[in-house]
Amino acid sequence: MPMTMTQKILAAHAGKDHVQPGELISAQLDMVLGNDITSPVAINEFEKHGFSEVFDQHKISLVMDHFTPNKDIKAATLAKQCREFAAKMGIVNYFDVGDMGIEHALLPEKGLVAPGELIIGADSHTCTYGALGAFSTGVGSTDMAAGMAQGVAWFKVPSAIKFNLTGSLAGWASGKDVILHIIGMIGVDGALYRSMEFSGPGLASLSMDDRLCMANMAIEAGAKNGIFAVDEVTYQYVNGRVNRDYTVYEADPDAAYEKVYDIDLSAIEPTVAFPHLPENTKTVSEISSPVPIDQVVIGSCTNGRLSDLVTAAKVLQGHKVHQNVRAIIIPATQQIYLDALRMGLIETFIESGCVVSTPTCGPCLGGHMGILAKGERAVATTNRNFVGRMGHPESEVYLASPAVAAASALAGCIAAPDGQYCGKGGNAQ
Amino acid sequence: MPMTMTQKILAAHAGKDHVQPGELISAQLDMVLGNDITSPVAINEFEKHGFSEVFDQHKISLVMDHFTPNKDIKAATLAKQCREFAAKMGIVNYFDVGDMGIEHALLPEKGLVAPGELIIGADSHTCTYGALGAFSTGVGSTDMAAGMAQGVAWFKVPSAIKFNLTGSLAGWASGKDVILHIIGMIGVDGALYRSMEFSGPGLASLSMDDRLCMANMAIEAGAKNGIFAVDEVTYQYVNGRVNRDYTVYEADPDAAYEKVYDIDLSAIEPTVAFPHLPENTKTVSEISSPVPIDQVVIGSCTNGRLSDLVTAAKVLQGHKVHQNVRAIIIPATQQIYLDALRMGLIETFIESGCVVSTPTCGPCLGGHMGILAKGERAVATTNRNFVGRMGHPESEVYLASPAVAAASALAGCIAAPDGQYCGKGGNAQ
Repeated sequence: MPMTMTQKILAAHAGKDHVQPGELISAQLDMVLGNDITSPVAINEFEKHGFSEVFDQHKISLVMDHFTPNKDIKAATLAKQCREFAAKMGIVNYFDVGDMGIEHALLPEKGLVAPGELIIGADSHTCTYGALGAFSTGVGSTDMAAGMAQGVAWFKVPSAIKFNLTGSLAGWASGKDVILHIIGMIGVDGALYRSMEFSGPGLASLSMDDRLCMANMAIEAGAKNGIFAVDEVTYQYVNGRVNRDYTVYEADPDAAYEKVYDIDLSAIEPTVAFPHLPENTKTVSEISSPVPIDQVVIGSCTNGRLSDLVTAAKVLQGHKVHQNVRAIIIPATQQIYLDALRMGLIETFIESGCVVSTPTCGPCLGGHMGILAKGERAVATTNRNFVGRMGHPESEVYLASPAVAAASALAGCIAAPDGQYCGKGGNAQ
Repeated sequence: MPMTMTQKILAAHAGKDHVQPGELISAQLDMVLGNDITSPVAINEFEKHGFSEVFDQHKISLVMDHFTPNKDIKAATLAKQCREFAAKMGIVNYFDVGDMGIEHALLPEKGLVAPGELIIGADSHTCTYGALGAFSTGVGSTDMAAGMAQGVAWFKVPSAIKFNLTGSLAGWASGKDVILHIIGMIGVDGALYRSMEFSGPGLASLSMDDRLCMANMAIEAGAKNGIFAVDEVTYQYVNGRVNRDYTVYEADPDAAYEKVYDIDLSAIEPTVAFPHLPENTKTVSEISSPVPIDQVVIGSCTNGRLSDLVTAAKVLQGHKVHQNVRAIIIPATQQIYLDALRMGLIETFIESGCVVSTPTCGPCLGGHMGILAKGERAVATTNRNFVGRMGHPESEVYLASPAVAAASALAGCIAAPDGQYCGKGGNAQ
């Protein structure tokens, strides 16, 4: 029976020759992830059930990223609980202020996730690691607790939707624009409990950062996971990071897909998701009247990687952020911060009037470091624009790529870097 | 009748030939300052009293520094109120995310305060500008409201205590150690409602950053203000920043002082204020048993200036922050951040395992960006270590210089950079 990439990974981790959609399986876990807000719930469950040790001290990652450096006493208390649990259990991959980053940028960077592996995380954007050809998905804190204790989790095997990529990106278009385009096309429940499998001749032109961004947002289409076929780009990223054996799984040529979409990358334009759903997409060229903004956030597990900062710096270089805009740049990890600094990007950001934060999820989820007041609007490179996501219930978030976010910071309204300022023919500069 | 520096400034701004201690005067204001938590209260008062315009659009500074980038919806709402008020009133010196800094670092840097001027601010550490030979003091938000409307404020003329400085600082000793030594000597009410006037042959050896740090903490001895005699160091700092006329006031040789203290700068050692008062000082060499710590904060209006960061980087360079310590560096202004970056200091910080925040008061007042949990201890270059100041009521703050804070970050316990790690003869590295 032919299988998709995802089905093959699940079958292998369930010790089965094959699995089929809808089947319930118990699978071995290669990594169990939690952050500073989900781990404490899992730790409480773990302790309530009387577990005294974790299944593998190397296969658990606790990342203090959401409200750190500690936003308030509550955040400090939760982080302390995680820290003490990690020390008590001998958890090797505990990451705190100083040696840290946003979880979904950090784990790939540190080589803690690899092709063919099975990862669960108590965070919905755990689907990010599908960029490496892994199966990874978000779970609740109870599943995280059981996973930490026993190294297994139950799954219902998903069916799949295939995205056959052709052509290559042009101009300022990026992986973010591709995934926004797709979500705009299929809707926020367009891939409900399915795998989104990305492959095809266009794949080779997508950088790992593009892929990580796209897999990250699979959950925004309701998918169980997003996953990319493994190729040279994958190997180049993984080599030197992952120092253990891993298995690459390819979809069978005759694997069954519920749907197949052909996506011509060369036709993708800078795209923005309007409030209050990621599916409310327009290309910038389709915006008919200016949308003034108050804040820009460039960062997050979606778009806080080095190439994202390179793009933003290209747009910002030599220009000043609009006086009405607070522009907040958040490198996703300490390593990305250091790399960006050495490349001169941080200097460009400060010179242009941005502020640069230490790595944190911060404003993306309305946590801290850039919360919106009533009536305020932000363009953000983050992944969700639900009501009140970045602050007040009457604030608005517009999702976009780093290029669009940076151009908007300069223009004071939603804009693309190619001169399409503030709507067609507008010019705010 | 002979007068002190402070009395001369007050007399001149009250339009009088002389004033005497205890006298109530009404004085003209050269600058009225507020931040994101005090200004909204003042704005409400301003509007409640029906004022429709400010006394001078150039003599009010509103600085969004305490909870920015916005920590939460409440912070966002307060900042928005300030922003809208500044726009409506045409207030020129409105500083927000991007073009900002911690108020007491920002105003001197921008040339908004000058020798001989009279400044009030709705923030207790407004006394900082005494470093330039200005009279500046903290007021309540109601006084700020009246000041914004009418450009005057009432004062009771203070008597003075003189600190006659001799010698010069040696080794790792800094202005912070001097002021901690003085507060340890005279107590937190040792200068209650007095002026602390700093002069003498040792003055010339103190940098402007040392002076700003010392004047900043005058309030921690209960003083109405701290003030430094104007000299070449002052002129060097002010030239190129202040482009308006100002008057230098010197104390009369026979001015009356309640007390005169001789401070031999060459005898000052690295000093730490233990919980929970700035007067609980010990030199590091007096610490008899190790004091393990969880966090280090280098920043604030007291010690977040360029020379502070230079010192911290000297200590940290080539070393790694102790694994138990979260080390948070907060350049006090965007300009300081940029200067530090160009000097390679930020790279040193990141390489050593510190995180670098965008300018904010943040953790100093338990605001955000480094709040302590129950039982946690921090060494901080800030100015107050009251119960719960940086978070949980059962957390502890130890006040110290950037050199001691950096050394402590490496050692994992309170330490001086000259090898005195974790108490006399200890060695945590």
